[in-house]
Amino acid sequence: MSQFDGISSQQYRRVPILFVDTKAKLRQAITLINKAGQHDEKLPIVFASLVNREFRELLTTANTAIIIDPFAAFIGPLSEVLQLTPKSVVGLSHGVGEADKYDSRVDAVNFTLATDDGSCPDRCAQADLILVGVSRSGKTPTSLYLAIHYGLYVANYPLTEEDLMGEGLPKPLQPYRGRLFGLNISPERLHNVRERRKPGSRYALLETCRQEINRAKAIFVAERIPSLDTTLVSIEEISAAILQKTGITPRHV
Amino acid sequence: MSQFDGISSQQYRRVPILFVDTKAKLRQAITLINKAGQHDEKLPIVFASLVNREFRELLTTANTAIIIDPFAAFIGPLSEVLQLTPKSVVGLSHGVGEADKYDSRVDAVNFTLATDDGSCPDRCAQADLILVGVSRSGKTPTSLYLAIHYGLYVANYPLTEEDLMGEGLPKPLQPYRGRLFGLNISPERLHNVRERRKPGSRYALLETCRQEINRAKAIFVAERIPSLDTTLVSIEEISAAILQKTGITPRHV
Repeated sequence: MSQFDGISSQQYRRVPILFVDTKAKLRQAITLINKAGQHDEKLPIVFASLVNREFRELLTTANTAIIIDPFAAFIGPLSEVLQLTPKSVVGLSHGVGEADKYDSRVDAVNFTLATDDGSCPDRCAQADLILVGVSRSGKTPTSLYLAIHYGLYVANYPLTEEDLMGEGLPKPLQPYRGRLFGLNISPERLHNVRERRKPGSRYALLETCRQEINRAKAIFVAERIPSLDTTLVSIEEISAAILQKTGITPRHV
Repeated sequence: MSQFDGISSQQYRRVPILFVDTKAKLRQAITLINKAGQHDEKLPIVFASLVNREFRELLTTANTAIIIDPFAAFIGPLSEVLQLTPKSVVGLSHGVGEADKYDSRVDAVNFTLATDDGSCPDRCAQADLILVGVSRSGKTPTSLYLAIHYGLYVANYPLTEEDLMGEGLPKPLQPYRGRLFGLNISPERLHNVRERRKPGSRYALLETCRQEINRAKAIFVAERIPSLDTTLVSIEEISAAILQKTGITPRHV
């Protein structure tokens, strides 16, 4: 929707209809869609990712709605290239191996929680990646996102005042040079974030933020730690950029 | 790929190429794709979500590859329905309001971390949702997923032996009946998960798992707590099903 001028998120309602895997649920969905159209006196736009061809056809004929099928762009061309007929069966992408994948993602989340906020030294040897940055630069949510989505063991290390005033790389990080990634943020943004947390504190002062960030940047440059400015970048994009810049292979996708 | 028989994940390599937002990066991507095709002596299949029409055309003409454009299924039909021309500008879905959205997701993650594993009573009043279940039923990763993706304040409460042996709903949960959601899991699966964590313990015994789960289920039924069996369901699906069953509106999507 963001590709169309003049359509703001206030102008449409998003109604997710999930797990339509039986005909009864399909009928419910069709009723819901038709009612919404009548209520709004507008044609509903339905994004339907039904893999079952019969369901797709039933939906298309039963509704007074615009049906957009994102799978249509994939399944047909892939079928031609691979010279195979699609199975049109629901839920196949969550089959065999799902339990292992689940376990490994949960292990990654547990590792990330256990090593959050610098409780690193002993267990960092196991980390795929160690995020480094000043307090409130986005380390915790990013490390959890990477753990949940990619099964990566991500530790994080907050640069303390002592670290920032010291010489070179903080000692606990020295054995792990190759696995470090720095997160940066603009001083103004950091100031806002910290003000919300500890209003009026020295910690939140713009000047404190500016000094800490300058020192953190200097460390990243001097120690050749790849880094990223997270100001106005979403957690998804930060995570993707980290994978891209480090070349780390996800354990699971 | 799961829709095609005989294609296993061992038979193809996934190479993500991210942030192609300049012509220089597009040229790098094209080189990479062509090299991959020559190396494998197979036509690469490229899923290209480029919104910039010029980039899409350059990619299509420059490569010896199958180009599949997931956006083609959306943009054209939407353009017709809305009677608007797409802007074809990169990065629009991450624009204004991103900082607020980021803050609110981070707040949700922090809340979820602070209330993880039953440190609930004082702060549960703020929770949108409280996940309830026996130890290792998937509460922590699910609550973090819901916080990161939907900005929801999700607490979780582990049913202890005392809770399971007691009468009715555990006392700390009584003020929050309307916000509870139960997670269940098969005894066999729980046994495997716990064995990996504490091998040979009474805690991990199949019989212990069976008893705890039966009691948890009985509580969910007696107290009319909506619940879900998480065995072999991915974290994404558990989360989507919880939203569906509770009708909770995401704070952010």
